[in-house]
Amino acid sequence: MALTIGVDIGGTKVAAGVVDEEGQIVEHLLRPTPADNPDQVAHTVADAILELAKSREIEAVGLGAAGFVDETRSVVRFAPNLAWREEPLQKKVSDLVGLPVVVENDANAMAWGEARFGAGRGESHVVCVTVGTGIGGGIVFDGSLYRGRWGMGAELGHMQTVPEGRLCGCGNLGCWEQYASGNALAKEARRMAEHDPERAATLLEIAGGTPDRIDGNEVTEAARQGDPVALDAFSWIARWIGQGLADLAAVLDPGCFILGGGVSTAADIWFDQARESFLRSLTGRGHRPPADVRLAELGASAGLVGAADLARHR
Amino acid sequence: MALTIGVDIGGTKVAAGVVDEEGQIVEHLLRPTPADNPDQVAHTVADAILELAKSREIEAVGLGAAGFVDETRSVVRFAPNLAWREEPLQKKVSDLVGLPVVVENDANAMAWGEARFGAGRGESHVVCVTVGTGIGGGIVFDGSLYRGRWGMGAELGHMQTVPEGRLCGCGNLGCWEQYASGNALAKEARRMAEHDPERAATLLEIAGGTPDRIDGNEVTEAARQGDPVALDAFSWIARWIGQGLADLAAVLDPGCFILGGGVSTAADIWFDQARESFLRSLTGRGHRPPADVRLAELGASAGLVGAADLARHR
Amino acid sequence: MALTIGVDIGGTKVAAGVVDEEGQIVEHLLRPTPADNPDQVAHTVADAILELAKSREIEAVGLGAAGFVDETRSVVRFAPNLAWREEPLQKKVSDLVGLPVVVENDANAMAWGEARFGAGRGESHVVCVTVGTGIGGGIVFDGSLYRGRWGMGAELGHMQTVPEGRLCGCGNLGCWEQYASGNALAKEARRMAEHDPERAATLLEIAGGTPDRIDGNEVTEAARQGDPVALDAFSWIARWIGQGLADLAAVLDPGCFILGGGVSTAADIWFDQARESFLRSLTGRGHRPPADVRLAELGASAGLVGAADLARHR
Amino acid sequence: MALTIGVDIGGTKVAAGVVDEEGQIVEHLLRPTPADNPDQVAHTVADAILELAKSREIEAVGLGAAGFVDETRSVVRFAPNLAWREEPLQKKVSDLVGLPVVVENDANAMAWGEARFGAGRGESHVVCVTVGTGIGGGIVFDGSLYRGRWGMGAELGHMQTVPEGRLCGCGNLGCWEQYASGNALAKEARRMAEHDPERAATLLEIAGGTPDRIDGNEVTEAARQGDPVALDAFSWIARWIGQGLADLAAVLDPGCFILGGGVSTAADIWFDQARESFLRSLTGRGHRPPADVRLAELGASAGLVGAADLARHR
Repeated sequence: MALTIGVDIGGTKVAAGVVDEEGQIVEHLLRPTPADNPDQVAHTVADAILELAKSREIEAVGLGAAGFVDETRSVVRFAPNLAWREEPLQKKVSDLVGLPVVVENDANAMAWGEARFGAGRGESHVVCVTVGTGIGGGIVFDGSLYRGRWGMGAELGHMQTVPEGRLCGCGNLGCWEQYASGNALAKEARRMAEHDPERAATLLEIAGGTPDRIDGNEVTEAARQGDPVALDAFSWIARWIGQGLADLAAVLDPGCFILGGGVSTAADIWFDQARESFLRSLTGRGHRPPADVRLAELGASAGLVGAADLARHR
Repeated sequence: MALTIGVDIGGTKVAAGVVDEEGQIVEHLLRPTPADNPDQVAHTVADAILELAKSREIEAVGLGAAGFVDETRSVVRFAPNLAWREEPLQKKVSDLVGLPVVVENDANAMAWGEARFGAGRGESHVVCVTVGTGIGGGIVFDGSLYRGRWGMGAELGHMQTVPEGRLCGCGNLGCWEQYASGNALAKEARRMAEHDPERAATLLEIAGGTPDRIDGNEVTEAARQGDPVALDAFSWIARWIGQGLADLAAVLDPGCFILGGGVSTAADIWFDQARESFLRSLTGRGHRPPADVRLAELGASAGLVGAADLARHR
Repeated sequence: MALTIGVDIGGTKVAAGVVDEEGQIVEHLLRPTPADNPDQVAHTVADAILELAKSREIEAVGLGAAGFVDETRSVVRFAPNLAWREEPLQKKVSDLVGLPVVVENDANAMAWGEARFGAGRGESHVVCVTVGTGIGGGIVFDGSLYRGRWGMGAELGHMQTVPEGRLCGCGNLGCWEQYASGNALAKEARRMAEHDPERAATLLEIAGGTPDRIDGNEVTEAARQGDPVALDAFSWIARWIGQGLADLAAVLDPGCFILGGGVSTAADIWFDQARESFLRSLTGRGHRPPADVRLAELGASAGLVGAADLARHR
Repeated sequence: MALTIGVDIGGTKVAAGVVDEEGQIVEHLLRPTPADNPDQVAHTVADAILELAKSREIEAVGLGAAGFVDETRSVVRFAPNLAWREEPLQKKVSDLVGLPVVVENDANAMAWGEARFGAGRGESHVVCVTVGTGIGGGIVFDGSLYRGRWGMGAELGHMQTVPEGRLCGCGNLGCWEQYASGNALAKEARRMAEHDPERAATLLEIAGGTPDRIDGNEVTEAARQGDPVALDAFSWIARWIGQGLADLAAVLDPGCFILGGGVSTAADIWFDQARESFLRSLTGRGHRPPADVRLAELGASAGLVGAADLARHR
């Protein structure tokens, strides 16, 4: 049975694994990412691959990278959290490991993993939305990953949601990820806690007393304890998540949306609200079957599994 | 050489034509649309087809319909301007003419026509935006029309552009077509002319003195004569057209956008502004090749030609 | 004891009453408004005054008029619901009744009535917001009604709340009263009921099955029966009412807001939410005493009582 | 002739002057502000007063302070740029100098100065908008400064302009000063220069090559040299300045607006656009005389002169 290796290269960790045709991880290892140095990243990735490839025959390697990957799936044009600028990652790693290598945007790899082996199994039109620090996305239909003309498709977090809205790291105003991501959740909770410390008493206690220390985990814990400010912050991102899904449905009319990413670990708090917001905002409601909204199933390994499988279908 | 027939079924006219493999219209006829009666529409369409098919061998027929067409390309679920509700148009016409028939959304048919034979020739990733009364859209890539899971893809005019914005006919608030269509142009010009009749003197003169009579044609003529209110109205929709293209580029990363529809006949007034607005609003600008923004080339026959060609590639 | 007469001239009814120095109505009568004919309005008003003045000595008369009143308190410049255009109402009525007459905008008269004898007693800085079909307003401080330079002050409903938002009857976009009035409530409930008839089942039943028949009364009744769409519509206007109060507090820093008008009869449903929204949106919260938010106390007679008292303090 | 002293206490400088009844500055001195230490600020202010009072008989002293001043005009509740928290400034300085002292918000003092001796002379209803780093405001009518119930009136910069808009230092979203101040100007110019460095070539050259060094002065100089990005940034704040004036006119209906503050030194670039935007956005246009929009006349000494005069009219 043919095996491939998938590698998920994040800002802090490199996760690599051997994956079979069913999307099962056969072996798995983790390395810290030497984020400042592109060459070292390539070597770290290659070492991990070579170690996994020692005892097994490997057909090909797929790399999921947190950055803009070009349409040839070879070069990382730009990465917000690593030192890559026009980095020829495919060639570097391929030269080091002597195996066929493809590079893919990490959110695309996740989407592919979920569409093939996770929540999107059997669906022909899948849009995957990764709600983490920011928002990433991947579009899969008719058994293919949609990359766009230049490999930049599915940058879903940068649709404009609020004209003249909050400043985004991308330089635009009002991007979706300023309203519907983990960062947005924490910022909004912080803002409200400063505004009304009494109402945010539980949240502030969990955060050690200062709004500055409020991050996603604190908001989640506080929401679970019933803190009204934390619950409001979740309701707020849920509303915007749903609105964004409705916008995407107007364009893409998928059969299902899959919601993943770090914020989805707290989905019990916000998922239903996001789905309701989606249904309320969907154009043509009543004249169309609404897309199903689902949670991702593969968790943190979706990217690795997806990258490995994309290598198989390279 | 194989010939097909394309029919563009609009709210007022049925345009039908015989089209060859190069997208050339060999013969062409027009009929008024009996908009109130679905059966009569089917008969009118069938009569036109039969007349065109008398003297030539026809392989198949493509119908472009201004409505939501289901994913099997057979049934028109709902049409804003005709009496269709769950109308089995494919079966009705096919039974009447004895030829293979496919039904397609009219904006999809236009997009296909432009992508194959018009401004999108040679492009792999094309998004066509029809700026008419409202906004329609079509997405073509890798030689296929993108329909979405349920045939409702590319309803581009109903992405939300302004939260809590203007009420749209679809029941939602702030849809793109409330800011970037011919209707939006006329409404905004009317509003400004009421507000400041002196500044809109030329526009009001052209409209016979009353803001109520201002429509797209009046705004266009006034803009050509330098009326500042008419020019402002065009600048305003141009800005929103560009913003919407930028949102679509974040999702779809096309190689080119094609702008068509009635408002594009005045493109000399607004096209450059729309393109600039697009470039200003594009996320990741500088790290990506921007999509080319082009005007449609086939004019009013794009839908007919596209429908005929879709029948050939059914 | 000196008595004055107050007259509240609405689009459908003329309410007139004799009022004493304590703001008590001593005698009271109602007439239909001959809305189409300014002269008849003046005569109707004069007849009512003369009838009330038969048996008592009257010092002066105050007229509250639903329109823009000029800064001399004599002329109604424009009225949306009556046929007044530059109407010399003060002179006409004064000539007919032989008494001193002052004319005041009706929302100003209400504000004065409430500030003097109602919810604003004892407060030095009062902003009164009348949430009816639209939004009216009146500002009272240091014992004076604030009229602005040209008598057009406190047109509170026409602050812009949403840039590029819903079209207002005034010709602007996104005015407060498009989001926070009785009209806005009914429109939003209608929109949501069309969008999701199942969820609005109770509301639709009350409205006889059709969204078109939904008006303020239907939304109120449905909300009382727990209809989720009606409750959402009230929550929505409550949020925007609160936001508008916060904007006014940034400008005017009043000691209290008084909320009156037709929608305040359903205040049990929305008042607490509006106050919370105000507190959440108030700038400088924690560094300032927030204005008290109160319900009007004088009900429908506030305008009449206020007009009478303004005549006394003319 | 009675003389008073006015002191303008800013974040970096203390400006003090002897002012006569005509608003003329008779003598004047400057000191650096010891911003971190409230007691030292009081001593610096007192020293300046005592020095000026040596050779002249002084009736009273007015202090203009950049912070929230309470309704008794004694205590600075909070100051964003100095270390004042519930600072009893009136008592401290009064004890040190042995003269009657009143404390006033600095924007209020400026407004008073302009209304009495500057651009607002002879006007009964004046709204002064200070467009500096942020936006300050002052309201003067019928010969009185409007302070609000708690001394917090005319915090004009914190009306909400864009729902869910840019985060403001006050903790709210979408405040006017995030769109219409000197800070907003610089931020927007920086953002656009990063986005499109070629178009901002002149601006970037002036700023030494890096967007980070772009500040108000750079934008002004670049705009004067025709840099399109700098001009766009000015047009953008001008549009929002005008919109805010229209909102204020709906509430206050002033006879004139006076625009002052640092950004007004570049008024030749943006003033006409702001006035046009105001007129376009004014509710009831055509049925009312629009407020006159004027530039401040007293420049940087308006606050000092105003504070001195407020001491006279204490």
